[in-house]
Amino acid sequence: LLDQRALPHAEVWLQLRDVEGVAQAIETLAVRGAPAIGGAAALALALHVRTTSIVDATALQDDLDVQTARLARTRPTAVNLFFALDAVTRARHGLTDSDAIRHAVVDAAERVVDDDEAACTALGNHGAPLLADGDVVLTICHTGALATCGQGTALGIVKAARAQGKDVRVVALETRPLLQGARLTSWECLREGIPVTLITDGMAAFAFQRLGITRAIAGADRVTRRGDVANKIGTYGVACLSHVHDVPFLVAAPTSTFDLELVHGSDIVIEERAADEVRKARGDTGWTTLAPVDVPVWNPAFDVTPAHFVHALVTERGVLHRTREAFDEDAVTQLVTRS
Amino acid sequence: LLDQRALPHAEVWLQLRDVEGVAQAIETLAVRGAPAIGGAAALALALHVRTTSIVDATALQDDLDVQTARLARTRPTAVNLFFALDAVTRARHGLTDSDAIRHAVVDAAERVVDDDEAACTALGNHGAPLLADGDVVLTICHTGALATCGQGTALGIVKAARAQGKDVRVVALETRPLLQGARLTSWECLREGIPVTLITDGMAAFAFQRLGITRAIAGADRVTRRGDVANKIGTYGVACLSHVHDVPFLVAAPTSTFDLELVHGSDIVIEERAADEVRKARGDTGWTTLAPVDVPVWNPAFDVTPAHFVHALVTERGVLHRTREAFDEDAVTQLVTRS
Repeated sequence: LLDQRALPHAEVWLQLRDVEGVAQAIETLAVRGAPAIGGAAALALALHVRTTSIVDATALQDDLDVQTARLARTRPTAVNLFFALDAVTRARHGLTDSDAIRHAVVDAAERVVDDDEAACTALGNHGAPLLADGDVVLTICHTGALATCGQGTALGIVKAARAQGKDVRVVALETRPLLQGARLTSWECLREGIPVTLITDGMAAFAFQRLGITRAIAGADRVTRRGDVANKIGTYGVACLSHVHDVPFLVAAPTSTFDLELVHGSDIVIEERAADEVRKARGDTGWTTLAPVDVPVWNPAFDVTPAHFVHALVTERGVLHRTREAFDEDAVTQLVTRS
Repeated sequence: LLDQRALPHAEVWLQLRDVEGVAQAIETLAVRGAPAIGGAAALALALHVRTTSIVDATALQDDLDVQTARLARTRPTAVNLFFALDAVTRARHGLTDSDAIRHAVVDAAERVVDDDEAACTALGNHGAPLLADGDVVLTICHTGALATCGQGTALGIVKAARAQGKDVRVVALETRPLLQGARLTSWECLREGIPVTLITDGMAAFAFQRLGITRAIAGADRVTRRGDVANKIGTYGVACLSHVHDVPFLVAAPTSTFDLELVHGSDIVIEERAADEVRKARGDTGWTTLAPVDVPVWNPAFDVTPAHFVHALVTERGVLHRTREAFDEDAVTQLVTRS
């Protein structure tokens, strides 16, 4: 895995040899981005069946349950992780031959990755018509290639629009505390020749006033049936500012990010992370302390944007437009569950 | 001067011996906060007349013009600086005796400082009734004692309300890029026993949803006749979020921050600072690089909040409530110009 913690200062590749290594890579954000986490977790199970010395089929199934549970404990908010693990579990369900189990796990894991790559491409193509030539797109966190198994989700829409010849520029929020915008979106945009301007999160409102923002796009970590969206902390603020400035707020959400069991965003579990992430910042010289070491902190990793602030949900199967206060639950369910 | 750049990691006191030293302290943000800048600039002129070897009155007047111009070039947005310099210039106007000039400059400079201290106290007393027992107050940047010659402006209102026995808590935005909230507001609140929770700027919106913010208060660097407010970058975003969540947004603005020559906020000169302030962060280990070193950056130090987002302007002479789209220009002019 390319270690996302070291970017943009260094390209460090991690050699992970077991499930525990991948689990820790997810927990420490060496790999992050909801679809990328799903892909990494699935591949960890493929790696496991290729390296384990267990030969008895029943023992292997039990062991895979344990390994799957370990991966499921890494991060609570992104639903793709659980979908990816479920896909692998379903593939091996009922198999009683250890070779068959191995093949099923590897195939299922590779399918998770391939499907995500294809989903990114399709999502970008569905979203591109929502961007016009000359658009200035505000985005938060990182939703590009590093965050997925393909070209990205929200940033993938920008890439698809630019591939159609539209002059689309990006204004990237640095996205404190972990600075995915400063570190990863900046890096990927520079690398791929996408015009980008980096700003701090507090500059977002003034950017609507003075930089002529015409669209805001965010990714999603979990989307409920009515279209409430959990995503990186700060997304809800971007949605509010888009509303105040009458700018469309679009959410790029592969169907793997939908959780049809939930209706309301208030039911989404929000991961709260360590206070020191806020008190400190990590740069090329390591962690540096910004605030008094004993100041109380609130550090939710995600926030929830109510559906009525979301203009459209862009999926790999098409675009859902909101027509009332929330999205149509039947339309969402139909889109996500159709095979 | 207490070097605000070193806080909260160390209390470093600067011994400044001439106007150039003070000018550089203002430019490098060793001293910051609109009223504190005004006080420091005035005292720099007092220091100058006490140490200069010029004895000829005409030469001294000319020299003071040069020194004043140097201080006026330090920072463009905060109007207090120019008011403070003007007050000292007016005091020495027409004087032809060098001792008289010296006394006039020192007296005027001390009056700038004393008046600001008294203004802070009065402003806090006028603002305190706007806060209720149990209020959770979102604030941005630093508006406490360090930023003024007294107890502070926006934070001074919190102090006055607490002194009245109201349980008022503070949620402080870290205020990137220069982190005045993380470094200074946190430090001052901890030191003075004001309950404070530090969050990143992107968490503001979710804090309205989940931390029960009931008031937002900001300071001001320049206020126009209709009540448009220039203040630290991010303030406009707080105002937008207050609007969306139907929470009063209050601005603490001593009359010295009003610029009656301006009507519209779009006429306020907005200082843009170096790109590296955004690409980097300064912590206890010095500057660390967060982003690619060549990523394009936009770094406005202030933003402009249109009057219609401001519920009330709290001054040392009383509170102005907005009744229409903007504040009443006559009422503002009357309040600011009455002696």
